[in-house]
Amino acid sequence: MDRLFCFETKDSCVGILSGVEEFRRYRERMNKRILSSNNLGIKMFFALDTRAYEKGALDTKTKGMLDLVASMVLRCSDCIAYHAIRCVQEGVTDEEFFEALNVALVVGGSITIPHIRRAVEILDQCRDLQKKNKHPGLYAGNHLS
Amino acid sequence: MDRLFCFETKDSCVGILSGVEEFRRYRERMNKRILSSNNLGIKMFFALDTRAYEKGALDTKTKGMLDLVASMVLRCSDCIAYHAIRCVQEGVTDEEFFEALNVALVVGGSITIPHIRRAVEILDQCRDLQKKNKHPGLYAGNHLS
Amino acid sequence: MDRLFCFETKDSCVGILSGVEEFRRYRERMNKRILSSNNLGIKMFFALDTRAYEKGALDTKTKGMLDLVASMVLRCSDCIAYHAIRCVQEGVTDEEFFEALNVALVVGGSITIPHIRRAVEILDQCRDLQKKNKHPGLYAGNHLS
Amino acid sequence: MDRLFCFETKDSCVGILSGVEEFRRYRERMNKRILSSNNLGIKMFFALDTRAYEKGALDTKTKGMLDLVASMVLRCSDCIAYHAIRCVQEGVTDEEFFEALNVALVVGGSITIPHIRRAVEILDQCRDLQKKNKHPGLYAGNHLS
Amino acid sequence: MDRLFCFETKDSCVGILSGVEEFRRYRERMNKRILSSNNLGIKMFFALDTRAYEKGALDTKTKGMLDLVASMVLRCSDCIAYHAIRCVQEGVTDEEFFEALNVALVVGGSITIPHIRRAVEILDQCRDLQKKNKHPGLYAGNHLS
Amino acid sequence: MDRLFCFETKDSCVGILSGVEEFRRYRERMNKRILSSNNLGIKMFFALDTRAYEKGALDTKTKGMLDLVASMVLRCSDCIAYHAIRCVQEGVTDEEFFEALNVALVVGGSITIPHIRRAVEILDQCRDLQKKNKHPGLYAGNHLS
Repeated sequence: MDRLFCFETKDSCVGILSGVEEFRRYRERMNKRILSSNNLGIKMFFALDTRAYEKGALDTKTKGMLDLVASMVLRCSDCIAYHAIRCVQEGVTDEEFFEALNVALVVGGSITIPHIRRAVEILDQCRDLQKKNKHPGLYAGNHLS
Repeated sequence: MDRLFCFETKDSCVGILSGVEEFRRYRERMNKRILSSNNLGIKMFFALDTRAYEKGALDTKTKGMLDLVASMVLRCSDCIAYHAIRCVQEGVTDEEFFEALNVALVVGGSITIPHIRRAVEILDQCRDLQKKNKHPGLYAGNHLS
Repeated sequence: MDRLFCFETKDSCVGILSGVEEFRRYRERMNKRILSSNNLGIKMFFALDTRAYEKGALDTKTKGMLDLVASMVLRCSDCIAYHAIRCVQEGVTDEEFFEALNVALVVGGSITIPHIRRAVEILDQCRDLQKKNKHPGLYAGNHLS
Repeated sequence: MDRLFCFETKDSCVGILSGVEEFRRYRERMNKRILSSNNLGIKMFFALDTRAYEKGALDTKTKGMLDLVASMVLRCSDCIAYHAIRCVQEGVTDEEFFEALNVALVVGGSITIPHIRRAVEILDQCRDLQKKNKHPGLYAGNHLS
Repeated sequence: MDRLFCFETKDSCVGILSGVEEFRRYRERMNKRILSSNNLGIKMFFALDTRAYEKGALDTKTKGMLDLVASMVLRCSDCIAYHAIRCVQEGVTDEEFFEALNVALVVGGSITIPHIRRAVEILDQCRDLQKKNKHPGLYAGNHLS
Repeated sequence: MDRLFCFETKDSCVGILSGVEEFRRYRERMNKRILSSNNLGIKMFFALDTRAYEKGALDTKTKGMLDLVASMVLRCSDCIAYHAIRCVQEGVTDEEFFEALNVALVVGGSITIPHIRRAVEILDQCRDLQKKNKHPGLYAGNHLS
């Protein structure tokens, strides 16, 4: 089960990231639809995409930041939403998060500023959720950009 | 008359692609406004744009897929909406449609996935409309990206 | 005080650009949030960004058009909204505005057309506001893309 | 054996596309090097890339043009060199080739013109090679962008 | 006759911009080749491109800088070479040139720095040529990016 | 003194990365030229760029990989050359390097493959230099993309 944006205790989901919940449902529904097609190439790509973010020589936290910066400089809103949440899930601190954004801002220029705002907005929503729960934690299901 | 997203029988429009209707009206209204300006260069470009999609050595179905893939890798939502519908209008099958998306996905990377979702959503809406009508058919007026 | 999108008389703001007001508030709130972080690099970049649009060897009107064209070919909606309004504020005429759009359209291709529509929509809203007020004028606070 | 840019008779390679031969060797050597690494993800992506261009619901000629246009609007020189040759190999005529370029030019704008020149230069080199040989034909080994 | 990069006295060309001369010849030769094809759309686009840079509501100097900045943020080397020379031809001063580059740098980010270097190199070559000739002046033939 | 691409023992530079040495000299010369202009904005941006890569909440090794991936997906050859070398200097292992490339490949698509080849070529050159010297080590002077 994909409960990507869900903060959970041991037994249940105790908080939903309100602003992105609609996006999450749409994304989940459409990904299923796409994978139900007979196009093997697309299915393989989705598998490859999930795989790229698994722990290897680099840990998942570092990979989360690599994805966030790549999404920032390419200015993909949905990808940024996804990867910003992943970064929080992987334990990226606020200081680390802002430094990653700074790298993206310097490399990609002021054209990335609207997406900087979006990433910080999501960061703040995640922090709010974390404060509300005694046992904050995030569970990420299968990954797709 | 531009009735781009309208499924029609011989005499009347019998179905509207709900999700994109508002976009169509906005697009139509603004294109008129732009063409009402005195800028000859912009007018000529719009004519050139329409012309590029007419049948020549390549048929309009092939051109439709060329446009769809170009719009996908450049990640232009409105352009994708437009060209996905055009592809359906030109008789592109689901299998062909997904193969074109696969080319875009491999060339453009996971950053195109949000637009893959969008294109498939529109494809499904078009197929629904086609099923509802006994004489499915689409009439496209003048083209503008 | 940043009252970027506000047409004002000497004493008060007499008109708000309706369509973009929500965007303005969001933008203002998030910029403050970002600047409240401890990341000096981002703060310095924001200062640099503001500075780039101040009068120097080039006047602010010319710089406004440079920014508009750069935002157009990079297809950044929020940046276009911002810079289109700035161009009006700097006294760019309709003819000049459309010529700048034409340069962007020719250089950037039909993929920019959705953003051409957006820029013209904002231009028209600004002109409407200017007509409604006896003493049209715009005051722009600190700049951020 | 990868003899991508080689025109051949039944038994042997009878012509090499001079301008791109150095590129071909470099490309072939580095692809081997990359595939010799232990990174499974990259290997899988390369396989996926090859697969995307094989005949399916769409024939290889149509896919060749989809790739050419995608490479053009993303302005990737090496990719254009590769896909322009592939188009010739798949039997794309000059008229079809120029129409595909026109689509890319209109969608991508004048910024693609340097790559239009490059694509046409390669087309002409291919045609010259085809004229020199009694049994023109091209054999493409494994594909990688 | 297209003598774009040629500094001339009244009667003859007295200086060639060394570093870009080879590029100029290639460009001129290929443009002729492209225009010799039967593709009307491409011919019309080239005409449109030339037209976009002619004096209108905006003077050619301002348009030269708009093009330079657009080429910079899209990072097109050949386009930058062309438009940097045009800017010199149109009388853009060093201070104005650097301010335009600064706008491009801030909007487009550090990813544009390699092209900043290229633009300044060409600026310096143009200034050297201007110093060597008593009657500096540039004649630009038909324009194509 | 900027000796970016120089492998050194305690007392002297003992190896130069052959393939990129010419690039290094050009880059160094032009950066000096650019900084000699009177444009304060550009100078400040260069300072900001250097600053973004210094150790903060994130270490320089992680930042090196963030930059490499950002340069890869934006497909900037010079930037990739620079950041690939920096990664080696910061102690990135081959496995880590390839995983970072894989992230860029999946996010950015096959259009990045020519730059994957380039990055691996530079990695190999760096490893060769490191083997030749008993006390491998790299010293990087001021940073500019």
